[in-house]
Amino acid sequence: MPSTSIAEELAKKQREIAVSEFFERNKHILGFDSLTKALITSVKEAVDNSLDVTEECGILPDIVVDVQRVDKDEFRVAVEDNGPGIVKKEVANIFARLLYGSRFASRRQARGQQGLGISGVILYGQITTGKPAIIKTRTAEMDVAYQIQLMIDTHKNKPNIIKDDFTPWDKPHGTRVEVFVKGRYIGGKQSIPEYLKSVAIVNPHARITYNPPEGGQVVFERVTEELPPKTVDVPPHPYGLELGTLLQMCKETKSYRFSSFLSEEFDRISDRVAKEICELAGVDPAMKPKAISLEQAKAVLEAVKKVRIMAPRTECLSPIGERLIKKGLKNVLGSLRPEFFTPPLTRNPSVYSGNPFQVEVGIAFGGDIPPDRPVEVLRYANRVPLLYQSGACAVTQAVAHVDWRRYGLEQRGGEGVPFGPAIVLVHVASSKIPYTSEAKEAVATIPELMEEMELALKECGRRLKTHLNKKARKVKAREKFDIVQKVLPQIAAKSAKIVKKPVPNLDATITKIMGVVWVEDRVTFEKGQHFVEIDIHNFTATGKKLNLHCLLPRNGTELTKSDPKPTEVREDGKVTWELKRIGSVEKATVRFELKGLDQGDLEEVDLYVSGIPPDLVIGAEPLPGDWELNYKEFETEEEEVPPAAEEAEEEVDYDEAEEVLEDE
Amino acid sequence: MPSTSIAEELAKKQREIAVSEFFERNKHILGFDSLTKALITSVKEAVDNSLDVTEECGILPDIVVDVQRVDKDEFRVAVEDNGPGIVKKEVANIFARLLYGSRFASRRQARGQQGLGISGVILYGQITTGKPAIIKTRTAEMDVAYQIQLMIDTHKNKPNIIKDDFTPWDKPHGTRVEVFVKGRYIGGKQSIPEYLKSVAIVNPHARITYNPPEGGQVVFERVTEELPPKTVDVPPHPYGLELGTLLQMCKETKSYRFSSFLSEEFDRISDRVAKEICELAGVDPAMKPKAISLEQAKAVLEAVKKVRIMAPRTECLSPIGERLIKKGLKNVLGSLRPEFFTPPLTRNPSVYSGNPFQVEVGIAFGGDIPPDRPVEVLRYANRVPLLYQSGACAVTQAVAHVDWRRYGLEQRGGEGVPFGPAIVLVHVASSKIPYTSEAKEAVATIPELMEEMELALKECGRRLKTHLNKKARKVKAREKFDIVQKVLPQIAAKSAKIVKKPVPNLDATITKIMGVVWVEDRVTFEKGQHFVEIDIHNFTATGKKLNLHCLLPRNGTELTKSDPKPTEVREDGKVTWELKRIGSVEKATVRFELKGLDQGDLEEVDLYVSGIPPDLVIGAEPLPGDWELNYKEFETEEEEVPPAAEEAEEEVDYDEAEEVLEDE
Repeated sequence: MPSTSIAEELAKKQREIAVSEFFERNKHILGFDSLTKALITSVKEAVDNSLDVTEECGILPDIVVDVQRVDKDEFRVAVEDNGPGIVKKEVANIFARLLYGSRFASRRQARGQQGLGISGVILYGQITTGKPAIIKTRTAEMDVAYQIQLMIDTHKNKPNIIKDDFTPWDKPHGTRVEVFVKGRYIGGKQSIPEYLKSVAIVNPHARITYNPPEGGQVVFERVTEELPPKTVDVPPHPYGLELGTLLQMCKETKSYRFSSFLSEEFDRISDRVAKEICELAGVDPAMKPKAISLEQAKAVLEAVKKVRIMAPRTECLSPIGERLIKKGLKNVLGSLRPEFFTPPLTRNPSVYSGNPFQVEVGIAFGGDIPPDRPVEVLRYANRVPLLYQSGACAVTQAVAHVDWRRYGLEQRGGEGVPFGPAIVLVHVASSKIPYTSEAKEAVATIPELMEEMELALKECGRRLKTHLNKKARKVKAREKFDIVQKVLPQIAAKSAKIVKKPVPNLDATITKIMGVVWVEDRVTFEKGQHFVEIDIHNFTATGKKLNLHCLLPRNGTELTKSDPKPTEVREDGKVTWELKRIGSVEKATVRFELKGLDQGDLEEVDLYVSGIPPDLVIGAEPLPGDWELNYKEFETEEEEVPPAAEEAEEEVDYDEAEEVLEDE
Repeated sequence: MPSTSIAEELAKKQREIAVSEFFERNKHILGFDSLTKALITSVKEAVDNSLDVTEECGILPDIVVDVQRVDKDEFRVAVEDNGPGIVKKEVANIFARLLYGSRFASRRQARGQQGLGISGVILYGQITTGKPAIIKTRTAEMDVAYQIQLMIDTHKNKPNIIKDDFTPWDKPHGTRVEVFVKGRYIGGKQSIPEYLKSVAIVNPHARITYNPPEGGQVVFERVTEELPPKTVDVPPHPYGLELGTLLQMCKETKSYRFSSFLSEEFDRISDRVAKEICELAGVDPAMKPKAISLEQAKAVLEAVKKVRIMAPRTECLSPIGERLIKKGLKNVLGSLRPEFFTPPLTRNPSVYSGNPFQVEVGIAFGGDIPPDRPVEVLRYANRVPLLYQSGACAVTQAVAHVDWRRYGLEQRGGEGVPFGPAIVLVHVASSKIPYTSEAKEAVATIPELMEEMELALKECGRRLKTHLNKKARKVKAREKFDIVQKVLPQIAAKSAKIVKKPVPNLDATITKIMGVVWVEDRVTFEKGQHFVEIDIHNFTATGKKLNLHCLLPRNGTELTKSDPKPTEVREDGKVTWELKRIGSVEKATVRFELKGLDQGDLEEVDLYVSGIPPDLVIGAEPLPGDWELNYKEFETEEEEVPPAAEEAEEEVDYDEAEEVLEDE
């Protein structure tokens, strides 16, 4: 039976747990649950820091990663950067104290925010090898570098300085982290060089040098001198704000009036919007924020939902962009060539819990990609490739949640990761990525994020399906064409022989039977330029006039020559040619040259037509009503596509026709 | 270009992050990433605590869960227990301070250990509703209860006491937690009542009363008055000890001699083993632990690997046990009846990073279970059902890693969660479950755990396959039997008619053609007892003598009557009958009665035979060489089973034979 002594006994055991003790016993939560992963996590955390700090200070990053084997399963991992360096008094805390950092409250895209990454690595090193970490750092104003040997006092979560000193360093400024960790070195997709390569691809402004334990050196050279646009802090967007958070903010604000509190502490709340919110909520704009009641706060949140508020500002985000997404996909493919890349998609920014985020998706399909395996899903978050915990990740779950059967992939029951020759890349950029754990390996399944990802995946799925349909239509039309061209002349010759008359000219007849305008593009690359030729064959009985449109890749693509001259060239990459009338059985050709793209960046052009009934045209799509292609129009409910829809074309039994002739 | 000012600027932003601030911004890591999940997590954390504390104090738990709707998406969750209560001065810290608790350093199985669960719920409540939690608690010696309204000062991770007071409470001792949270109330598998039901099944000593928002009351009555065996702290096992941890322990120990340090601070290190380790490592047993060098510590760890050390003590663990595993499976099935349950398997304990753990597996197969869906995986950790993050969980990954095709399930490429009519239950019990995150939703893929789980799953897979083979053999033999019995008499009658002789007796001939001993069991349940009848038909040409063995469920099963009397009844449930010679075409029957099992607990008995060539017998397996069935013998490399192996029996075209006769 219980007595005070039991409660007292229990009370004696109660104590505070230092966060360092917690992670000492739960190192797997920080990503150290296997030896292979531990090694790569150690590299990753240091590289993330170097990329963050150089980006923040406008420095082109130059990072050297050095991994050396010390013992059978012990490695020395050293990562050195050319960042601004760290002032002496902060070094120990930054590296040997968990939950200590500078970016925790920041409201813009960064790789690290938690103040856990690198100190977690040092904790893991000390647990597994008993050795201190060695940090060397120099700021631009220091004459020498500061070097410190550090361990973590896990009971107190405080640095334990083993030794520190000044030392000469020929580097003008930068930081070097050296840590001894237990690990296992492996090759393959989840290897350090593969990881660094993925990092380099989405951070083309970085030079990353890798010295592997087996010797030799791999340099991922930077491909641009241009830093990604600098991100800036943006206040929280009012969407998704929690009641308790609002009350807390009201308590802590320095604003005197409630309306200025709203406009000052939130993104996209202008004075006018603030006034509107107050009015709708029945709250006096002049009220002191601290005086807000629970009921008033509730009313304000309800009002926020009803008032029109602009989408979040995106200066805090740094998406990967369409070209780099394609590059990321190509990297995974290695020497394999896919049949097709869906034009990558960067969605408009959205918000969860006040944090802006943006989703990007690209798909590679067909060609050499193995057709009988689950689709590979490449996950990126804030320009960092995610290697582990795929099953736990919102990205994988969004992929599994889309019914890919309607986009031409195999998927049992319309659920789960589909099978087929495809690779799907998804990037989530946010001022705050909601990771499932401190190891930052997977994105949590926040409903707003899931929804955006699914919409993006479906849109890319539709693009894939459009391509497959176009291909199928082309194949079908070409078959018809080939057979008609083969069969008709033979019939004509036979008939002519029988009636003893000359063989008639069949062009007009063939044309009538085909009844299509055939558009075909060829892309070649020579001397740093892409050459594009587009043929438009008029296989109809009458002359046809049409406008041809082409969507060129954005970001520095330049149209250098064109014959005929385009009627319009737009900022967003849209080029239009108003073509002259093409007579029956005649053909027009558009030729142009493009600068600014690397070889392989352009394999086919996206062609659209207008001014002609779209079902007459094969090889180009009807021009979408909303040419901006902001895809909004596609975001409505999924229309049920009856499975046999594409099969509705009339069927001619060509085989039979051919047999009759062979029979002669 | 960088200057000190940049480094100084950065330094200014550096600060410590309170763990409460961290989780305030990362509430999803604590399991609050969706509204439905948030509500169930709130209930779960409180119930876990109540079960832990009552079990620890030897009290039969009586828990009342009350969920009421306050607003559209706001709920009041109240959980009340009959635990020992909490002394006044600890209440605020326990509930309103993260990483504060009593079980963090404990080394035995418990549901909560982190000191994060319930304070996380209170944090979530305050973020989403702005309301304080209300705690009422009374210890046995108090005359009244202590009631306190609490919030968390997230900047400091300290309790913020809104109000406290004493209040009468008719309960002699116990604790009640009341919290207001934003949530969504749903039905189905991931609903609160379903969750509580799963909890009740593996905690049959608990009474759980549930008052749902829609009114009514559900009581999960306790089915036993017996508490699970009390677990006790066991020191860490030396297996998996990390170098840095050993050094740290050496620094902190109170032992004067290194050998006594080893024997006192580790499980299963006797004085003799300690001496052996010291010898092998070349370390003086009398050395002061603090004086250990890095090299010596390394040598000690190497020696630990070589010296024979017993498996960990299991007093710290509380497995679910075979009967409850079956009950857990049945619960999920509801009214569906499976064809077969594999005998559940509780593996011997093993160790990861010094922590003992034990894996249990059971499989339900066939019957009404949908055959065309992925196999359902039920996950339990320390008697807590895991509902979320299935993809991230070591359990699911272990299931996906087994090649189930060899055990009769469909699995594309021999990888991934298989398809088929099966439900797999896995329980992991450990003094420390390595969860992937603080939300305790999934088990991390620690290699030692993965290995044990895979071995357990494979063993259960083999049991499933054995059953399927037995069934297939029975079906085939019965077909043969039926046809022989139908065809032969007709042939005999026809022949007799032709030669005008009397129809001969065919028993001996039929028997010769069959050439098997046929064993068949029937189980019935009546008046609280199971009645088992086992027929042994001798369908061979000569008399046969054999021993029949039966493996009865352990845990309180009692064999009350048996005819004939068994030759041996063993502790572990093995019962043997040495049967008298059974003449050709004769049959023997064994009948017995069993007490102590609930209806449905026994559906078929596991039968084995010895003293007879096993391939003669259909319906019973050959007695395993190692009758203890500790399964060690199965743990060797997987043997490649050629796919056609079972088809190798000679085929007779019975259909044809029958046609000939029908033809008459």
